[in-house]
Amino acid sequence: MTNPIRVTVWNEGRHEKTHEEIRKVYPDGMHNVIGNALAEAGFSVRTATLDQDDEHGLSEEVLAQTDVLTWWGHMAHHVVKDEIVERVAARVLQGMGLIVLHSGHYSKIFRKLMGTPCSLKWREIGERERMWVVNPSHPIVQGLPEQIVIEHEEMYGEFFNIPQPDELVLVSWFKGGEVFRSGCCWNRGLGKVFYFRPGHESYPTYYQKEVQQVIINAAKWAAPIEFPKITIEHIPVPIEKVD
Amino acid sequence: MTNPIRVTVWNEGRHEKTHEEIRKVYPDGMHNVIGNALAEAGFSVRTATLDQDDEHGLSEEVLAQTDVLTWWGHMAHHVVKDEIVERVAARVLQGMGLIVLHSGHYSKIFRKLMGTPCSLKWREIGERERMWVVNPSHPIVQGLPEQIVIEHEEMYGEFFNIPQPDELVLVSWFKGGEVFRSGCCWNRGLGKVFYFRPGHESYPTYYQKEVQQVIINAAKWAAPIEFPKITIEHIPVPIEKVD
Amino acid sequence: MTNPIRVTVWNEGRHEKTHEEIRKVYPDGMHNVIGNALAEAGFSVRTATLDQDDEHGLSEEVLAQTDVLTWWGHMAHHVVKDEIVERVAARVLQGMGLIVLHSGHYSKIFRKLMGTPCSLKWREIGERERMWVVNPSHPIVQGLPEQIVIEHEEMYGEFFNIPQPDELVLVSWFKGGEVFRSGCCWNRGLGKVFYFRPGHESYPTYYQKEVQQVIINAAKWAAPIEFPKITIEHIPVPIEKVD
Amino acid sequence: MTNPIRVTVWNEGRHEKTHEEIRKVYPDGMHNVIGNALAEAGFSVRTATLDQDDEHGLSEEVLAQTDVLTWWGHMAHHVVKDEIVERVAARVLQGMGLIVLHSGHYSKIFRKLMGTPCSLKWREIGERERMWVVNPSHPIVQGLPEQIVIEHEEMYGEFFNIPQPDELVLVSWFKGGEVFRSGCCWNRGLGKVFYFRPGHESYPTYYQKEVQQVIINAAKWAAPIEFPKITIEHIPVPIEKVD
Repeated sequence: MTNPIRVTVWNEGRHEKTHEEIRKVYPDGMHNVIGNALAEAGFSVRTATLDQDDEHGLSEEVLAQTDVLTWWGHMAHHVVKDEIVERVAARVLQGMGLIVLHSGHYSKIFRKLMGTPCSLKWREIGERERMWVVNPSHPIVQGLPEQIVIEHEEMYGEFFNIPQPDELVLVSWFKGGEVFRSGCCWNRGLGKVFYFRPGHESYPTYYQKEVQQVIINAAKWAAPIEFPKITIEHIPVPIEKVD
Repeated sequence: MTNPIRVTVWNEGRHEKTHEEIRKVYPDGMHNVIGNALAEAGFSVRTATLDQDDEHGLSEEVLAQTDVLTWWGHMAHHVVKDEIVERVAARVLQGMGLIVLHSGHYSKIFRKLMGTPCSLKWREIGERERMWVVNPSHPIVQGLPEQIVIEHEEMYGEFFNIPQPDELVLVSWFKGGEVFRSGCCWNRGLGKVFYFRPGHESYPTYYQKEVQQVIINAAKWAAPIEFPKITIEHIPVPIEKVD
Repeated sequence: MTNPIRVTVWNEGRHEKTHEEIRKVYPDGMHNVIGNALAEAGFSVRTATLDQDDEHGLSEEVLAQTDVLTWWGHMAHHVVKDEIVERVAARVLQGMGLIVLHSGHYSKIFRKLMGTPCSLKWREIGERERMWVVNPSHPIVQGLPEQIVIEHEEMYGEFFNIPQPDELVLVSWFKGGEVFRSGCCWNRGLGKVFYFRPGHESYPTYYQKEVQQVIINAAKWAAPIEFPKITIEHIPVPIEKVD
Repeated sequence: MTNPIRVTVWNEGRHEKTHEEIRKVYPDGMHNVIGNALAEAGFSVRTATLDQDDEHGLSEEVLAQTDVLTWWGHMAHHVVKDEIVERVAARVLQGMGLIVLHSGHYSKIFRKLMGTPCSLKWREIGERERMWVVNPSHPIVQGLPEQIVIEHEEMYGEFFNIPQPDELVLVSWFKGGEVFRSGCCWNRGLGKVFYFRPGHESYPTYYQKEVQQVIINAAKWAAPIEFPKITIEHIPVPIEKVD
């Protein structure tokens, strides 16, 4: 690929504005931390947030110029307009990659593409998470150690109500007793979707290099290829002779 | 299982009323042909149709008493009320099996559960279909031959825009040159979903014993089990000691 | 199924003879504990052990009368004769179910059917294991709680070098910090294979009701169906006209 | 990747020597046709053949310098030495990609890595094959049309006795009435395995640009990444405190 992959880093961006303690962790918003890591890795990055404009920063033009979209949301999933969700879903089906982060599991866009509630257990005491690689041949774990230790994180526990992943890449262990499928791949139409479990807004998870590396690898994996041109249509005349 | 599995056979049921030539094939509606086959196989069967009442025959009570729902629709997908689609989807996620038949690929309920457009190619010249077993160990092909030949059918061709099936059981060959993934399994929540490609309304496909056998097998496969009780909730106190 | 499913419970059976402390846990061998649980659940059960005869109790006749074989081995994998391994593999490919237990991960038969080393991490300090259900719709977890807690077990940790399971049903958490894919399903030919992680010979794991229930459910799931008759042969004359 | 991917194109190479009509199609052996296509696409290519030396051209040194191995064999599978098969399998498990071509389905290396007989139906009348893309988002179909038409090919028909592919990419239609899973992906250890159905030795299939493109794409897909360093070992001391 000669041109850099174009990533739009989407962030709800409200916790950082309304909660002093979150602002301390991400003074410029977590989208800038994620975006900077991607930019340093050579991607062409733009950010977008819920309250940026009346399209949540996701105009048709922006999406048309986006190869991969990352999505973090939490307290305001319901505020995201249905028409923007439809627009994003349509772009994924046409080939845009989608990386859903942490509490984005409950976003409208993720639930729509999965067809399930995407519900789970949770606990917020800042316990240790160990994310283990269960598919070391997958491009999303390129260059990583066999486990990523995050000292303080929110717990997410099974049952995670998702369709069985096409590829399961990472499984998390939590100090308090739970496990979670933390790195999951699916296709939807031409688009690739990756769910990645960390990071809760109150911890500096997205500053951690290994976490950034997973997102970088996922963005490369999810970037569109030169897709076969698929025709969806009535074929009135058979391509082979029918007697 | 001591009690018979309760199947509700849902049919749009309009072609049979509005098209003389379809009525000749299915004078009592295709739901009764499918339903009779299931009843003979020992299921407890009820039928429901789009225009039966203002809930399309799918009241809360009916769905609560349904273990497996089969769905055939074609010309009136848009007439199915969104609230009924939500109701059916909720029941599938709670464990009701769903068998989507033929043109039901474009139904609201199937597209909602898949998260994709479920689009495909098609041609209606009554050509021969050969449906080959590609997973002979699967309960859905129990007792079948290695191929099911249907003399006259509508063609459906790839690309079928669905999520990769968890289990692919049947692949069709069409005389005119196309192939199709004709028997596909997925889970959604606690529910099992099976898509089965045949039969177009203008051909007597649902009278064919092998086609009936697939539906019978699928209904057994999709019937709810005694599911583990899943809790989806905040777990404030860890189950293991966290230092 | 009118006749009971016929299960052969195979056990290496050496630890129980050579180690006093293991004999205390399983005085009649673990095969009898597993076998009794299956017999009480209505299966027709026979047991077989490595040193029983020069075919390890797995004659052609025994295998021909076996619907599902369970396999536990550990210290003497290398003693199992290659010709018996070939015989068992052939029967699995013809449709016999195979349930591989715990240290059976390194058995010749499992590695042969998987095509991978089936290696893993391990630690034997008797720590707590929590086995979480990640696919609650699967027949193998019928009637179980959402987690199975085993107070004292050997740890097995990822990376477990297996092919990606067709269906992943259970994931284990270990007190000491690891996770493991503990309930994994595959097909091989007509046969179904289930790997189930517990139980180490020095703990009374196979007495635990929930562990027994998994094995019972797996034996039902893995039992042969009336398979489609597959032909593997030269087809000199096309079934369709080729111009 | 700065350095070119190193591909070793392995060919049994006997048909070309013993059959005049095959030599006419591939005067320098099919390995050179495949190898030239890969070299033009920028890979670093070497070829190796069964009778080249007493290691079939697959010395430890050659394999150590091979990122991806392609394998075509047919009449002399049994001649391939078991120790070389073990050597190749070990390298795949360590991360070397493997592309198995056409009649390589019956090779020792493919059957060993699959754990199944890899049997199928066949017919050799030079009928038309249409290979349809069923996963247009997969890197292996990058830049291809939605179907690849091969005017004259040997037929391979289902049931193809393989483990369910992790990803199914291509499905073939044959004029004479059969279908086949023609492009199939699996992982084995760190290595990626791709089975690709065409081409029979008596047809000029490997000269066809689209067929070459699939092999080129597959070689990129199967090339090793910087794998996480996996430890497989006894972990005597827990990484987390165990009370």
